[in-house]
Amino acid sequence: MQLADPRSGIEALDRRECLRLIATVPLGRIVMVVGGSPHIVPVNFVVDAATERIVFRTDPGTKLRAVEKGRVAFEADDYDAATRTGWSVVIHGDAEEIDPPAAAGARLFDPDPWAGGDKAHWVGIQATTITGRRIG
Amino acid sequence: MQLADPRSGIEALDRRECLRLIATVPLGRIVMVVGGSPHIVPVNFVVDAATERIVFRTDPGTKLRAVEKGRVAFEADDYDAATRTGWSVVIHGDAEEIDPPAAAGARLFDPDPWAGGDKAHWVGIQATTITGRRIG
Repeated sequence: MQLADPRSGIEALDRRECLRLIATVPLGRIVMVVGGSPHIVPVNFVVDAATERIVFRTDPGTKLRAVEKGRVAFEADDYDAATRTGWSVVIHGDAEEIDPPAAAGARLFDPDPWAGGDKAHWVGIQATTITGRRIG
Repeated sequence: MQLADPRSGIEALDRRECLRLIATVPLGRIVMVVGGSPHIVPVNFVVDAATERIVFRTDPGTKLRAVEKGRVAFEADDYDAATRTGWSVVIHGDAEEIDPPAAAGARLFDPDPWAGGDKAHWVGIQATTITGRRIG
């Protein structure tokens, strides 16, 4: 076990474990800089572990405009309050609108958003850095 | 029910409901702009609903340095994957290091971080905007 920070007892997770963990949750969060300010939006997503890419669907709006500018962060986590344990993964990368069939391969890879609307725009975040921490 | 977006079926939550909901979860996420890039860090927090302030504790590091620059976002959410329902609240505000006793009043208000370390620096985020959405 590699400690991310000896003061905290937090374990650093390797890239492979990060990609495995985020695939176990249906919801993540896209983090963007809009007009110099930090913004965050929850999204349903899927992971393409082979290419280290996060894929989500969206409608036209802030998310899509911000994504067009490129650099974003993505976060997913899970925790158990009773045992005070959990993990968090943060991915930094470049986002771009992608072609649905090329990204999806099949319906299996559809991010399947809970929210209604067409969400016809597919976005891929190509990971540059992947960091993860586990506590407890 | 006010719809945030007629396409999506997502319900917009009022400020009071947002503050009530975030107090039901132990973990939120601080979103910052660091060197022009988006950053996100999970934190244990408490809400002071009377003053509309989010309070968390931290050690010296990126979070504290970013906070000193002021403008941050905070997000908390909860969801049930089985029913595809959930809520998310996003707060924008100005962060500053605060005096623990003044912020805390009593131990009741200690954010009580799960991670180890002194976390002797207390940070308050004074909300300017509070937005929330519920799905399902």
